[in-house]
Amino acid sequence: MGKLILVRHGKSVWNIANIFTGWTDVDLAPEGIEEANIAGEIIKEHEIAIDICYSSYLKRAIRTGLIILEHADKMHVDFIKSWKLNERNYGAWQGRNKDEVKREVGEYLFLKVRRGFDTPPPSLQLTDERHPKFDHLYDTVNSSYLPASESLEQTEVRVVEYFFEVIIPELVKGKTVLVAAHGNSIRGLMAHIENINSSEIPKVTVPTGVLQVYEFDTNMILKKKYKLEEKSKIKL
Amino acid sequence: MGKLILVRHGKSVWNIANIFTGWTDVDLAPEGIEEANIAGEIIKEHEIAIDICYSSYLKRAIRTGLIILEHADKMHVDFIKSWKLNERNYGAWQGRNKDEVKREVGEYLFLKVRRGFDTPPPSLQLTDERHPKFDHLYDTVNSSYLPASESLEQTEVRVVEYFFEVIIPELVKGKTVLVAAHGNSIRGLMAHIENINSSEIPKVTVPTGVLQVYEFDTNMILKKKYKLEEKSKIKL
Repeated sequence: MGKLILVRHGKSVWNIANIFTGWTDVDLAPEGIEEANIAGEIIKEHEIAIDICYSSYLKRAIRTGLIILEHADKMHVDFIKSWKLNERNYGAWQGRNKDEVKREVGEYLFLKVRRGFDTPPPSLQLTDERHPKFDHLYDTVNSSYLPASESLEQTEVRVVEYFFEVIIPELVKGKTVLVAAHGNSIRGLMAHIENINSSEIPKVTVPTGVLQVYEFDTNMILKKKYKLEEKSKIKL
Repeated sequence: MGKLILVRHGKSVWNIANIFTGWTDVDLAPEGIEEANIAGEIIKEHEIAIDICYSSYLKRAIRTGLIILEHADKMHVDFIKSWKLNERNYGAWQGRNKDEVKREVGEYLFLKVRRGFDTPPPSLQLTDERHPKFDHLYDTVNSSYLPASESLEQTEVRVVEYFFEVIIPELVKGKTVLVAAHGNSIRGLMAHIENINSSEIPKVTVPTGVLQVYEFDTNMILKKKYKLEEKSKIKL
């Protein structure tokens, strides 16, 4: 039986500073490192035998995966990364203070982008140095795939595509798969797996550092869904 | 043109204590971490675009690869591990002081094992808790493959097998491949790539932390071989 464990990276430096991050490659804050340490210890405590780990191309998710594997005594498992698991691309809002953007564009548009399903933020210009085509991380990606901004819907499309192409084949083999990713890329996966519709998914909150487990049978029918918690904290 | 970069992990805690390590999963010493830091900075300085990283299942090699990737700004490349890149299994000598073993077995046998090609050290008993079948790292490996001791020749066989099965296909695609491994597993690869015969290969020394580069054409014909060094230290 395949097992999928989703974890949203812990707090990054920009989460704490209230700045739109998106594809900006900001590292974990010390609190985020601690969240990953704890997640790794929980996996060890529950003796979960992770077989393979996936993350986005962004170091806050990669480091979350690495720390979890190290604490879980699973450094030796393969670690595969893809830009398709990246956070939603926040376009021209990336690097800007969230309150400042809200004052500038007004609450209506702000919420439509942030909490809506199909509204992308304003796009990065093709000449903008923040455009992913200038980032060496995407040197091997065909630049026509690289978004200049994304709605939650667009994020979900590429994440679910990756889930079908790469992750499901491992789950079907019965593997236990850890995916370290981001608020919106995980939301996209959850929408697909839990069959959450487009009006509900923007409201789903994904807490950082929490291990969300999905168990499937070999036909990829979802059998169980639960959170992994410290045994000492589980309420009986 | 495919490029292969071999690096032997830096000093481990047991290297420093003069203890036979083999498959024992000892971590890097602070000096070993520093060697990996420098190797990563050299790759960055030379702007080498690593496409994929391989290592053994042992954390001194894994950590070497991770540190190099981080310093080279390449955390996002896939990192694949295999027991076939492990150090030579030193059997019953693992965990024992080298001088003590030499006194016990005599210089002749000691050198025949350490510097010969086809003599394995005494095997681990199947009941010995140091046998790899008791190590969770090898839970997914068919136990009939797990050695209880290895000669350099036996090490070379499995390493070269892995090179053909997994690494050559990447090189043929033109990828730049980093392999973080061990004195004897790297010696096995070198014997194959450089066509070094069995009487010469035990004498080849593999310095720790040094980046040895091999460039091939698409027919896997070796075109160039060189060491990557800090630019400031290259003698003109």
